[in-house]
Order: sequence, then C-alpha cells, then structure tokens
Amino acid sequence: MYEIRTDLALEDQEKYEADNVEIKGVRLSKQKMGEDIVITTMSIDTENGAKAMGRPRGSYVTIEASSMDDDDEAYHQSLAKKLAEIIQNLLPKQKVESVLVVGLGNRNVTSDSLGPKVADQIFITRHMMREFGTSIFGEKQKQVSAIVPGVMAQTGMESSEIIRGVMEETKPDLVIAVDALAARNTKRLNRTIQVTNTGIHPGSGVGNHRNPLNEESLGVPVLAIGIPTVVDAATIVGDTMSELLHALSGHQELHVLEHSYHSLGEARQHELVRELLAPQLNTMYVTGKDIDASIERLSMTIGNAINLAFQE
Amino acid sequence: MYEIRTDLALEDQEKYEADNVEIKGVRLSKQKMGEDIVITTMSIDTENGAKAMGRPRGSYVTIEASSMDDDDEAYHQSLAKKLAEIIQNLLPKQKVESVLVVGLGNRNVTSDSLGPKVADQIFITRHMMREFGTSIFGEKQKQVSAIVPGVMAQTGMESSEIIRGVMEETKPDLVIAVDALAARNTKRLNRTIQVTNTGIHPGSGVGNHRNPLNEESLGVPVLAIGIPTVVDAATIVGDTMSELLHALSGHQELHVLEHSYHSLGEARQHELVRELLAPQLNTMYVTGKDIDASIERLSMTIGNAINLAFQE
Amino acid sequence: MYEIRTDLALEDQEKYEADNVEIKGVRLSKQKMGEDIVITTMSIDTENGAKAMGRPRGSYVTIEASSMDDDDEAYHQSLAKKLAEIIQNLLPKQKVESVLVVGLGNRNVTSDSLGPKVADQIFITRHMMREFGTSIFGEKQKQVSAIVPGVMAQTGMESSEIIRGVMEETKPDLVIAVDALAARNTKRLNRTIQVTNTGIHPGSGVGNHRNPLNEESLGVPVLAIGIPTVVDAATIVGDTMSELLHALSGHQELHVLEHSYHSLGEARQHELVRELLAPQLNTMYVTGKDIDASIERLSMTIGNAINLAFQE
Amino acid sequence: MYEIRTDLALEDQEKYEADNVEIKGVRLSKQKMGEDIVITTMSIDTENGAKAMGRPRGSYVTIEASSMDDDDEAYHQSLAKKLAEIIQNLLPKQKVESVLVVGLGNRNVTSDSLGPKVADQIFITRHMMREFGTSIFGEKQKQVSAIVPGVMAQTGMESSEIIRGVMEETKPDLVIAVDALAARNTKRLNRTIQVTNTGIHPGSGVGNHRNPLNEESLGVPVLAIGIPTVVDAATIVGDTMSELLHALSGHQELHVLEHSYHSLGEARQHELVRELLAPQLNTMYVTGKDIDASIERLSMTIGNAINLAFQE
Repeated sequence: MYEIRTDLALEDQEKYEADNVEIKGVRLSKQKMGEDIVITTMSIDTENGAKAMGRPRGSYVTIEASSMDDDDEAYHQSLAKKLAEIIQNLLPKQKVESVLVVGLGNRNVTSDSLGPKVADQIFITRHMMREFGTSIFGEKQKQVSAIVPGVMAQTGMESSEIIRGVMEETKPDLVIAVDALAARNTKRLNRTIQVTNTGIHPGSGVGNHRNPLNEESLGVPVLAIGIPTVVDAATIVGDTMSELLHALSGHQELHVLEHSYHSLGEARQHELVRELLAPQLNTMYVTGKDIDASIERLSMTIGNAINLAFQE
Repeated sequence: MYEIRTDLALEDQEKYEADNVEIKGVRLSKQKMGEDIVITTMSIDTENGAKAMGRPRGSYVTIEASSMDDDDEAYHQSLAKKLAEIIQNLLPKQKVESVLVVGLGNRNVTSDSLGPKVADQIFITRHMMREFGTSIFGEKQKQVSAIVPGVMAQTGMESSEIIRGVMEETKPDLVIAVDALAARNTKRLNRTIQVTNTGIHPGSGVGNHRNPLNEESLGVPVLAIGIPTVVDAATIVGDTMSELLHALSGHQELHVLEHSYHSLGEARQHELVRELLAPQLNTMYVTGKDIDASIERLSMTIGNAINLAFQE
Repeated sequence: MYEIRTDLALEDQEKYEADNVEIKGVRLSKQKMGEDIVITTMSIDTENGAKAMGRPRGSYVTIEASSMDDDDEAYHQSLAKKLAEIIQNLLPKQKVESVLVVGLGNRNVTSDSLGPKVADQIFITRHMMREFGTSIFGEKQKQVSAIVPGVMAQTGMESSEIIRGVMEETKPDLVIAVDALAARNTKRLNRTIQVTNTGIHPGSGVGNHRNPLNEESLGVPVLAIGIPTVVDAATIVGDTMSELLHALSGHQELHVLEHSYHSLGEARQHELVRELLAPQLNTMYVTGKDIDASIERLSMTIGNAINLAFQE
Repeated sequence: MYEIRTDLALEDQEKYEADNVEIKGVRLSKQKMGEDIVITTMSIDTENGAKAMGRPRGSYVTIEASSMDDDDEAYHQSLAKKLAEIIQNLLPKQKVESVLVVGLGNRNVTSDSLGPKVADQIFITRHMMREFGTSIFGEKQKQVSAIVPGVMAQTGMESSEIIRGVMEETKPDLVIAVDALAARNTKRLNRTIQVTNTGIHPGSGVGNHRNPLNEESLGVPVLAIGIPTVVDAATIVGDTMSELLHALSGHQELHVLEHSYHSLGEARQHELVRELLAPQLNTMYVTGKDIDASIERLSMTIGNAINLAFQE
C-alpha cells in the first residue's frame, strides 16, 4: 500500500495533532528561542507509542527556523551552538571517548550531498590523538574520525556494510550519522534539523537506505542528524490534490466532489495517485534551485555543531 | 495567467497533435534510426506558425531515444555521430571559422550542470590556432573557445552580459549554447536532445534565463542544444491532477467530478493549482536521483558531438 | 637569461636588504601585530625605484604570519579584518560604487585554485541592488560582481580578453584580482598575503599570465591580492645549490668549491642550472601535500576580507 | 639515512643497469608495441633479488609511452586494451569471482587524485549481481565493488583500516589498488603505468602509506596499478645537484669539484642535501601545471582497462 514519505517524526505527529488525537506513550514539548526558532522534543517511550508513530522508541528533537535558509553567519553560529547542546543532551550515558561521523548520501547529487559535505567540515582528531597522545587538543577533545561511504551505484556495497567494517577495525563508542532527508511539506526544506538517538531506519534519507543504522545493527549508540532537502514527488502530488479538492468543494458546482473523493478513504486516494503517476515519478524528488547555497551553509552549521559538541 | 512550462518544441506540438489540429506554417517530419531512436524535425516557417507555437521561427530537431539514459558506450558514440550531423545541418550558410561554446547553468546543482559539464568536454583550439597557425589541427578544424558564465547568484551578472562581453573581445562567428531544459513529461528526462537554430529564449533552461541568446541579441547565429533534466513541480501536479480526475470519472460515484472540473476551462484549472501550491513550489523542480550519472554520460555525448562537428 | 621567479615584491626587496643596498625611490615600513603577524608596506615612488625593483610603481603590502596555515578560526577572523583594512587603505581616491572580483587560476589544479575559491566566497550584490535598489543591503554596501575566467586550456581565450569583455558590459569602478602566486622561499607558502594597487603583471601567478591586468589595460584601478602556494621548481634547485656549495665550503677538502662556483657569477650559475634541468621542469612547481586544506582556509579568509571591505 | 624516493621498480633497476650490474634473482624482459610503447616486465624471483632491489618478490610490469600524456582518444583506447591484458596476466591462478577496486589518495589534491578518479570510472556490478543474479551482465562479468578510503586528515583512519574493515564485510577474492606514485625522473610523469602483483608497500604513493596493502595484510591477492604524477622535491634537488657538479667538472677551474663531491659518497651527499633543504621541503612535491588534464585522461584509461579486464 502507498505510504506517505516523510523522514520527520514531527510531520507524523502533526497528522495526529490535526485530528486532535493524543497518543499514549508519546510525550511532546515545545521551546521557543528568540522570535524565529522553535525546538520540539518528542519522546516515544513505549512500544505502543512506537507502533502508533511508526518509528522506533527514543528521542526526536527538531529545530525549526524560518531564517535557517538565509545567508546570515551570526545566526548560523548561534544555531550551531544550540545544535551542539542538543547533541550533547542526546549522548548516551556511558562515557564516549571516540566518535565516528558518517556522511551518508551522494556527493554528486546536490540535494543528497549534505552528509558528505558535513563530513568535510569535521575536525578530525583520531589519528593525531593516537599518535601524539590523547591530550594534544586539550583534555576534553574526543577522538573523532569520519567516513563518507558513498552510494551503492558508486561502491556496489550497502552503506551499512562499509560502516560496520570500518567499526570493526576502529571501534568507535558512538556513531553520528548525517543525512539529507525527505519532508512532506516544502516549507520545511532547508529550514528544519532533526536529531534523534534512534539512528537511521530503512527507507529514510534521500537515497532510501535499505538497512538500519542503529544501536542494534552497529553495536554502539547511533545519533542521526538530518535536514530535509527534498519532498517525494508522489507525496507532493497527493497532498496538492487533497487541497485542490478541498478548494474545489468551495465552488458551488463542485461541492459534491470533495465529498466523493474523501469517501474513497485515504488508502484508496493514494492508490489512485500512485496508479496515475508515471512509474519514473516513484524515484523522483522535488527540490529547489538554490539548493547548492543552502547545502553549503547548512553543512557548515552542522559541522560546527558536531565539532563543538565533542571538544568539551 | 498560469503557463505550462516546457522547453521542448516537441511537447508544444504534441498538444496540437492530440487535438488533431494542423498548424499553418509549421512543418513536421519524423525519421527512425534503428529500433530505438526517433528524430523529429519541426520547421516553423512563418510568423503565424511562430505565434501559434509560441516559439521563434526556425528549425527544432529533437532526438528521442528510450535507451539514451543507459550506460552503453557504443550506443552513445553512435548518438554523438548523429548529433554531430544534425549540428552541421543546422549551421548557417555563411562560412564558420570560429565557434564559442557557452555552457549555461549552475555547475553546483547537479540537474542544472549539463552546460558547464559539456564545456569541460570541448576540444579547445582557439588559443593554439592563433599562436601556432590555423592548420596545426588539420585544415578542417575550426577555432573553438568555451565559456561557463555561471549563474547570477554567483556572478551578479546576467549570462547574456558575460557572453556579449566575451564576444566583443573575441568575435566568434557562431555561438553554441548548451543548457539543461525543463520538460513537461518525466518520461522525457535525460532521454531527449533538442537542437535549434533559434537560440535560447527568456524563461527557458532550468535556471530561467531572463534575456534571449539569439542572433538578434548576440549578432551571430546561435545554435542551442539542450536536454530536459527536470520537470517543473507545478506542471507535474497540474498534469497528474487532470489524469486523476479523468480516472475518477470512471468510478461510478464520481463521474460528475471530471465533468465539473473540465467545465472550469484549462485556464481556471491551472489558476486553481497555482493558488494551492505553496509559493515555494514555484521555484522547485522534479528530478531523478540518478541524475549525476545521467548528466555525466550525456555531457560526454554532447561534447563529443560538438567536437566532431567542428573538426571537419 | 635565467630569471628568478617570485611574485612577492618582498622577496625582491630582501635580496637588496641582504646586500645592505638602499634603493632610491623605494620606501619601506614594517608593523608588528601581536606576536605572529608582520605587515610590510613597500612604496615604489619613482620610475627609478620601479626599474630597480623590476615592478611597477605603487604600493605593495605584505602580511606575513607563521600561523597563517593553521586551522584556527578566530585567528583567521582577525586576519580577515586586518586584510579588509589594508584593502580599504589601497582603494583609489575616487568613489567606488561597483567592484568586479576576478578569481584567476585553474579551479581543477589545487595549488592554482585560490582565485576561483575566493570568488565562491564573495557576497554577490550587483544583481540584487540593480533589481531592488542600492540600499537593500544597507547604505554602505557596494555593488559586487565576480567572474572566474578559467585558464586558456579550458576557454581558448586569455583571461584579459574575458575580463575586458565583461567590463565593457558591466562597467565596474574597480577590479579586485585574486590569484595564487609563486614564491622563492618555501617557508612563505600559504603564510604570506600580498596586496598591491598595481594589478597583475605578465608572468605572475601560478599560471603565468601573458597580459597585464592593471589600470592601463582595464581602464579602472586594479587591486591584486595573492598568496604564494608554489615555488618554481627551477628556483628551488638553484637556491638549494647555492646553499649546498656554501655548506660544502665549510668542509676542509671542499673549500675551493664554493669559491669556484661563485666565481662563475650569478648569471652563469643560473644558466647552468637551467641547462641541467629537464625541459619539463620549466613548467613545474613545488607544492605541499596539504595544499587542499590550506587553500580551503585561506580562500575563506580572503573572501571574508573582501566582503568586509565593501560593506562599509 | 636519506633514501631516494621512487615508487617505480623500473627506476631502481635502471640504477643497476647504468652500472652494468646484473642482479641474481631478477629477470627482465622488454617488449615494443608500435613506435611509442615499451613494456618492461621485471620478475623478482628470490629473496636475494628482493633484498637487492628493496622490493618484495613478484612481478612488476611497466608501460612507458611518450605520447601517454597526449589527448588522443584512439591511442588511449588501445592503451586500455593492452593494460587490461597485463592485468589479466597478473591475476592469481585461483578463480576470481569478486573484485574490490580501491582508489587511494586525496580527491582534493589534483596530483594525488588518480585513485579516486579511477574509482569513479569503474563499472560497479556487485550490488546488481547479488540482487538480480550473477549472469545479468553476461556469464563472464565479475562482481566489482569500489571504495575511496580518503586520507588520514579527512578520516582519522589509516586507509588499511578502512579497507580491511570493508573486506571483512564483503569478502572480495581480489583487491585492485590504484594510486598516484612518485617517480625519480620528471620525464616519467604521466607517461608510465606500473602494474604489480605485490600490492602497495609502506612509503609509496604520493600520500606515503604507512601500512602495506598486500596479500599478507589483506588475506587476498592485491594488484597495484600506479602512475607517477609527482617527483619528490628533495630527490629532484639531489639529482640536479649531481648533474650540475658533473657539468661543472668540465669547466677547467672546477674539475676538482666533482671529484671532491663524489668522494663524499652517495650517502653523505644525500645527507648534505637533506640538511640544506628547508624542513618544509620534505613534504613537498614537484608537479606539472597541466596535471588536471593528465589525471582526467589517465583515470579514464585505467578505469576502462579495469572494466575490460573483469568482464571476460
């Protein structure tokens, strides 16, 4: 059956909110920062909550900021500081000495290059600390390494195979996986950062990972940081369709229409959209044309945040 | 009023074809090459034809090939040869001694990088022929130069300003402008090449040029070569909508719906879609996730064709 | 005759300093900034001074800092501020409203990519200020545009042809040309910034420009900013040779040697080195293997400095 | 003690050849192909030969071709075919079903980017053959995967750690390691391909690997393919020095000099050069300024050769 594609826990939650449904096992808190920034923390505490949300148990922190896509360095620096705090709050309780940053996605496709570009910004210390002593960068600096596994068409291997292999050899205590995400709503593109301690699950990211990257599969805690850079083409068509029909229903001669469409039920509606879409559309994404500048800025912000988080 | 966005003359023409309308002043011929390749030549001969088609007078040759996006080197070599022939047939009658290849678009946005990537493939001869004599590469080789003007966000200048300036200094006889295009139909993405002797007109290309690049504005003939790499997001929504309503009409309970929607007229329909779309969607494009590999291959094919066309 | 290759006026001057020669028409002042940074201002005031130095009349300001190649963001920010001041001090007296930044060099050769990478960092305002009014970024912001002309092997055109053409169309009041330079001394690589109001002269830069870019050739004042990223291979061999012979002279059995070599005179010495070098070596450069990280950092520093200089 | 840096077995051998010394346990054969190409096969058969050559036992095949750096596609295609044959001849006797291509070096430093650029050209089949069956690309196609491990400054990990990890997870039968090499002679730059079944040993490559990549360390046979793209700066100075002194000895007044220098012995000579060189020079390389175009062409040639070698 057709499934709406979003990698943002927040967007799942909004569906319920719209219907005024409260979900047992899911806690939500919102915090404002300045005029522009809203930070939402969602905790999925029970298996029940996980089932209802279709997401694993754990914490999902989302930073939303309408100016996030603007070219304002001071703003991005304060954003990086806030993000560093959030990362530190989501760290596992056990002591972390070494961190592997994984830059997921395809460096050659602009909208999917967030992960590799963040990896470029990381202050790499592992090799130096192993050679010259763990205190050369100060007592609080962690051992940081980074890998850009690439995509299957480039390597012939699953990202998870490469990451697991690298981990067997280098034994990090923690993985930070960074990836470009798919949102449901174009307003969120390049304006939302999601951080979660549940890792990456199959089907997420612009490149649709097949295998999970989480504590269960990798053996150490996995923090995932993502920014939505695309909307699934099928999703955008389906959503606009609903709105169109809703709008049409306001027109005298068409009020019957929305009623009829809605009577089909959401499942059947999506089936219809899927049938109508050219098969190519299933692997297609909607993205903006200034995506290069957005990715450039946001990868620096996330990179700075990770660097800040592991130097003290 | 809402306008359907396509840079392919062929797609304009198909609209008429669907309605079985013949347009005076527009001639059309189709040629098959092997099992896979169809070459359509459209000649807009009169001002009337130009007005009807919404495109300037001149020739539009389109190569369509369903395997064009496949990774088959021999196939791409034969495609390049065919394309070289088409380029030569569209050359102006006056003698061409020097050619400026212009790689339009944004190198940093994968779906818009066709022009810059083609420029990378060009066999550049002007500086050598000027220094060591016009026959160092054989009698038939033309003087070829190339420029990648970049986009306004990178330069602060219109492409046309940069190109005109470069032309004042270097006086080429001919301009070849290469650009990534927007199609209406996703099936065409990376599977169609359009060559025209009418240049680039405002609003075309992935990056929406503001000024025309044609013989009138540049003073020499301009051949434009393009491949559709994106579909305008608004167009894709509008089109799927039409199909959905058509499909819905087959369902007993909804037959009234299509009738009602169609009674609105195409203009009002598009206005509705446009109103409903998030304003962001107006600058958004739909593209595939293997776009990097497609662009890599196709830029080599076009580059090879241009190189072949000007060495004899 | 063999000529020692350096693009740094400071290195020319040091030769004289070593010999305790004072040159008429050349003034020199040094300023220390903190523990690490030395700023040297050389003014070539007369034609005589220009002849003696082999450089055009004008000001040459050099920032030397041994930590310039370190990865320290705060340090680079203070460097950028200082550089912005220097740029402002070298601006022409007439009012500057519009600036064209030219990123010289080859983006695809790491050691020659400083200019293009600086251009990527520039805050481009010309197109916005022309469309939305000159005060949209505040009263003090200048109209800034940028061009990366590429190298002859990519374009078939001289950089000067492209720049002149672009200037005819867009009429900037000032050109800022940024380029990677050749130094004589490897200690200077990535640790020295030279700013001059005399422009770029033939033979300078990693890519050896053929035509000058200066007020005479372009019609407006030209500020050139450069960082040495390479040492000419022939120069490095010649210099080490001299030092070797000097060292050898200390060894009892070889004291005759240095004497003999020096008796040849510098001209004949260099001729010898040149004869011995493989002809390929004449187009070769010495560069470090961390050049990618150095260029990344320094291009941000220069870019920030230019942005600061033209927003007030 | 100072060691002359070359990664080419051929250059080691030439030293002996110059002295007319024959080394026991080392066999040599030369083959001409056309006017331009010379293929030299050196077999180090015994431990004695290995000790004398300072290289592990095994086969070293070198293709030298003065036109290798020219832009001639047909020539490069025939070169690729020849290289594919050489690769096949050096394959281990046991059946190879799966191959991991490793692109060593730093993508961001042009002269060190050969390995990553070759990896970009590889026809990747492993993921497809595992999903759709081993015969989807024909019976003879091997499972090919590829990895670009990056350099320590980017990852904090040794290449060997990453490669071993990936191999534990994906179990290839054979590794092909591609790397940019250091030659002793600038004439060889971009004009020589070395293929060896002995893998990569410490200190080789532009980036100086610390750990070997060979059958002993990786558990499967390792074929290494390399092209010299740089000459070590210290080596070039030392060599030119020798030639200079030799030349000087011809001058009446200086005949004593060469004699004296040579009386120092090679070890002491090199010690002297090393002492004199600025410490920075030890991490520096000499490279040409058209290195971008050379790498572009040669990576396609090697990539095509590897693709040919494993499809039948």
